Amino acid sequence: MTAPTAQPATSTAQWHELAQQLRVDSIRASTAAGSGHPTSSLSAADLMAVLLAKYLKYDFAAPHNPANDHLIFSKGHASPLLYALYKAAGAISDEELMTFRRFGSRVEGHPTPVLPWVDVATGSLGQGLPIGVGIALAGQYLDKLPYRVWVLLGDSETAEGSVWEAFDHASHYRLANLTAIIDVNRLGQRGETELGWNLDVYAARARAFGWHTVEIDGHNLDQIDAAYAEAQRHADGPTVVIARTIKGKGVTALEDKNGWHGRALPADAAKEAIAALGGERHIVVQVHQPPRGGQAPRGAAQAVRLPQYKVGDSVATRRAYGDALKALGAARRDVVALDGEVSNSTYAEDFAHAYPDRFFEMYIAEQQLVAAAVGLQVRGYVPFASTFAAFFTRAYDFIRMAAISRANLRLCGSHAGVSIGEDGPSQMALEDLAMMRAVHGSTVLYPGDGNATAHLVAAMADRPGISFLRTTRAATPVVYDAQDAFPIGGSKVLRQSASDQVAIVAAGITLHEALKAHEQLAGEGIAARVIDAYSVKPIDVETLRQAARETGGRLLVVEDHWPEGGLGDALLEAFAGGDGPLPTVVKLAVRAMPGSGKPAELLDAAGIDAAHIVAAAKQLTG
Amino acid sequence: MTAPTAQPATSTAQWHELAQQLRVDSIRASTAAGSGHPTSSLSAADLMAVLLAKYLKYDFAAPHNPANDHLIFSKGHASPLLYALYKAAGAISDEELMTFRRFGSRVEGHPTPVLPWVDVATGSLGQGLPIGVGIALAGQYLDKLPYRVWVLLGDSETAEGSVWEAFDHASHYRLANLTAIIDVNRLGQRGETELGWNLDVYAARARAFGWHTVEIDGHNLDQIDAAYAEAQRHADGPTVVIARTIKGKGVTALEDKNGWHGRALPADAAKEAIAALGGERHIVVQVHQPPRGGQAPRGAAQAVRLPQYKVGDSVATRRAYGDALKALGAARRDVVALDGEVSNSTYAEDFAHAYPDRFFEMYIAEQQLVAAAVGLQVRGYVPFASTFAAFFTRAYDFIRMAAISRANLRLCGSHAGVSIGEDGPSQMALEDLAMMRAVHGSTVLYPGDGNATAHLVAAMADRPGISFLRTTRAATPVVYDAQDAFPIGGSKVLRQSASDQVAIVAAGITLHEALKAHEQLAGEGIAARVIDAYSVKPIDVETLRQAARETGGRLLVVEDHWPEGGLGDALLEAFAGGDGPLPTVVKLAVRAMPGSGKPAELLDAAGIDAAHIVAAAKQLTG
Repeated sequence: MTAPTAQPATSTAQWHELAQQLRVDSIRASTAAGSGHPTSSLSAADLMAVLLAKYLKYDFAAPHNPANDHLIFSKGHASPLLYALYKAAGAISDEELMTFRRFGSRVEGHPTPVLPWVDVATGSLGQGLPIGVGIALAGQYLDKLPYRVWVLLGDSETAEGSVWEAFDHASHYRLANLTAIIDVNRLGQRGETELGWNLDVYAARARAFGWHTVEIDGHNLDQIDAAYAEAQRHADGPTVVIARTIKGKGVTALEDKNGWHGRALPADAAKEAIAALGGERHIVVQVHQPPRGGQAPRGAAQAVRLPQYKVGDSVATRRAYGDALKALGAARRDVVALDGEVSNSTYAEDFAHAYPDRFFEMYIAEQQLVAAAVGLQVRGYVPFASTFAAFFTRAYDFIRMAAISRANLRLCGSHAGVSIGEDGPSQMALEDLAMMRAVHGSTVLYPGDGNATAHLVAAMADRPGISFLRTTRAATPVVYDAQDAFPIGGSKVLRQSASDQVAIVAAGITLHEALKAHEQLAGEGIAARVIDAYSVKPIDVETLRQAARETGGRLLVVEDHWPEGGLGDALLEAFAGGDGPLPTVVKLAVRAMPGSGKPAELLDAAGIDAAHIVAAAKQLTG
Repeated sequence: MTAPTAQPATSTAQWHELAQQLRVDSIRASTAAGSGHPTSSLSAADLMAVLLAKYLKYDFAAPHNPANDHLIFSKGHASPLLYALYKAAGAISDEELMTFRRFGSRVEGHPTPVLPWVDVATGSLGQGLPIGVGIALAGQYLDKLPYRVWVLLGDSETAEGSVWEAFDHASHYRLANLTAIIDVNRLGQRGETELGWNLDVYAARARAFGWHTVEIDGHNLDQIDAAYAEAQRHADGPTVVIARTIKGKGVTALEDKNGWHGRALPADAAKEAIAALGGERHIVVQVHQPPRGGQAPRGAAQAVRLPQYKVGDSVATRRAYGDALKALGAARRDVVALDGEVSNSTYAEDFAHAYPDRFFEMYIAEQQLVAAAVGLQVRGYVPFASTFAAFFTRAYDFIRMAAISRANLRLCGSHAGVSIGEDGPSQMALEDLAMMRAVHGSTVLYPGDGNATAHLVAAMADRPGISFLRTTRAATPVVYDAQDAFPIGGSKVLRQSASDQVAIVAAGITLHEALKAHEQLAGEGIAARVIDAYSVKPIDVETLRQAARETGGRLLVVEDHWPEGGLGDALLEAFAGGDGPLPTVVKLAVRAMPGSGKPAELLDAAGIDAAHIVAAAKQLTG
């Protein structure tokens, strides 16, 4: 096929033709694939045709142009429509469109950034708008560029609380560059939605959350045109276009019919439908170019001057996180920080005070916290998001999806483990290492002192993928020199001798218990190696294997975490490769539900303090 | 101390005295502990005094009385106030109150059901109201008892989307028995909340979400009284009392002051404050008894007649879940089901059609889905909640907290792993086993065929704690007889011989790949044992150790999951204990980000199909 020359589409008749093409292509692609969501695409075809033809400003030849608008399909299952748009914009060929859902194709079942025009993966509903908030924050407060963020939502997904976190934050930050479009087609996967076609309820909710609202017939092209124009004019905050649509619109047999969600038309029915829609078309629309100007965020302006702590002093690693983040902020203009209303606990407040223009308060809304960070990295910023480690569990779906988005994200979770003390189990992260290790391509760090923390925070800024830093509430002794290096994937052997009988592998708070245990064991004539596994993922396989070889295969791992999925499992993983038997491994971890108490009492009760390490080491070597 | 006789408190003057006692006790307890949240307690003291004295119907001597009201502190950090209420109700002694936050005490930093009057643990904000929705659903639709559910919220936590999921569902189900009380004290942990004292915005949002609203001065006892009376009268749905309060109310030095969140008063300041509040009191209030009547939900009415599948037929385990759940519903009146708007995919719809009065559609709101299940089990029901396994990541904080609540909860996650095919990674659970293994006291099940699924679903109904069943999208061969037993903690050795050179450990979809690999390996003269580890947690340690002993210590584990935290780590865990012999372990798991494709293509690309098992087994035994 020869690509036709792009033409402007300025009349209603042309928009209609374009919309029909989007419908036809949505049907063609999904029928060829034998699966997909054509009816969810058909309902939004008119909405997207007008957007593409008249409003979107996007240089499809340069997807990383900083001035481009952003279009997010929060209803990711309408991917046939999105890909049909890309074809209509001349970005992909009809041939590629027709590889929809095939193995190896870029046009996957749900959009992912394998396609350069897709900012973020969607398909877990309720994520596109919160991420759009992040991009809009970048546009309005950091880039200060006139691009707009357009987010297409399904009606069903407004049941997700995360959508209301986004409504809340978008109005709080008066994001006039953000337009949400809700495709109210009345039907969810298995029947009518909660609100059906009650557009007024959607509008009332959005208004109560501070948004400007426009209710339209989502198949009336003039109304759509007017709505987008109104959204662009409304300068005081975000606008939502609430569009009454018909699921399956354009194909009589599908219109407003239950039972057709996520089903491709059989070939015969597809042929008929395409004919009724006026047949195949291969219009290519001249999409408006963005204004010239704008640039990628600048990185390092100067060398990072990390905080330095003196060996023997005491500092909480969360305190060191705050210090290091602030130092990073001084050196790099692209570093931004966000926090979930606990910045005086995570110490993100130091950055916030020093660089208020690059700090975003996300209040107690951890899904929006992570989503905003994802949005900020879309624009090339280097976001650090912090809250209590336990509360990142609230955003696990967003973190999982961020990995599919190939996002570069830095998360810092404070107040980990039973060692936080009196606040009790609701505030104790005891599953965060498991959760974060099981994120594709993730990096999981758990430093034992202030200097290690500072170096690792700096390393995170340059680390691709999702990295997680676990910090400790209590002040702990500084054990490393400020000049020491802490490569990701490395470890530190803090105590060793030629006659080591056992290696104690620890990290974070338990490192200090391990060091105490080492002293006691030495007093009893037992030589114990102490390894600081500050890099939980990737873990330092070589050092662990060497320790196994040199200690007669006796490893004792101790962690302030449930026994599943944490440091102990990471250690075992280092020996699962088929090259030789496992060493003898004893895991000390938190096995009973903790309550309140002093940190020392809780470490004792959990069996992970120095005394328990000593006892376990003696048993293992006895 | 001799416990004073309980007295009715009917006058405003008496309520004031009670409120002052609650304030004094909140200060005394937190100052004695040296930590805690007195100022967050003081703001709500008047609200709770009137509730306890006049509205709450609760038999503190019989916390499991089905007719009792339910009081949930969604703002769990106001625990000093809750415990002060328990003292004022005569439920705990002043002595016990003063053990606040001490090791071993029941009055923990945040409330947990270690205290029999606490239904659920709180402390992760935004969870109390969604759980309250679950209890209110039980009251209105199942128990049909007149009890009320009262939920005290902080203003900061309304930033959590889960709160709006609850607002949405409560009005959808017209829960007239539910009253939310928002303590709008204007100050969060680190400064002013988003909305400050803008009560009208809270009210507009709640009304848009279908609630009746009452705005009051939260320190005016008459207004509080009138508001609760109005909430009780409002019969058409839930009511929210939005109370303007002052953080630290009653202690001039603390009132509306920033910097006092989560800080106990020093002893001197406490002494002064207590004097200003009129000194210690030990009033015990006669709390209204609930009406007589009501009973615990009934269990098995008849034996469960599980579905049976014929060996050699094909059935998806998600299909078997639906069949088994329906069978369970026929036998037991206490079994209830919930789904996140995908019941036609998880097959919870079979239960929904058969027992519509015991099915709750939670729409696409997974946090509310899990929270409602937690609420239903508070009342003794046996809830099964289902959605795609990937989307339980959305509710991880709720699952984590449910473990602290000692909740008995059954979760079924469908569409696990790359084997779902064309929909792509957003819909593929690849971290669910890791996430669920790292829940305290959890049970993690991953059956390989329909009969195993049916038996495990039945076992889950009687299983304490949180159990998770992972089901497969595709139909797979039935390999077990319907009469076989599948004890939790067990496994099945499907292929074995005296000369086994390697053991292949698999579960779910990979079981069938392992069986195919067994045939191929046999053809090449390699005897391979095949173990179905359908019980991922607890795992069958003995069978795995026996396999290690009998195969020369060669284990090959294969799973449709990231390498971290899943079946492979569970297997390794079985050998961490220090009592060898230790096997050589090879893990096959999903290591690269999948895209779309046919299930077989994706299993191949991930390296977890029969061919890859064969190759790995040959390498391991070669």
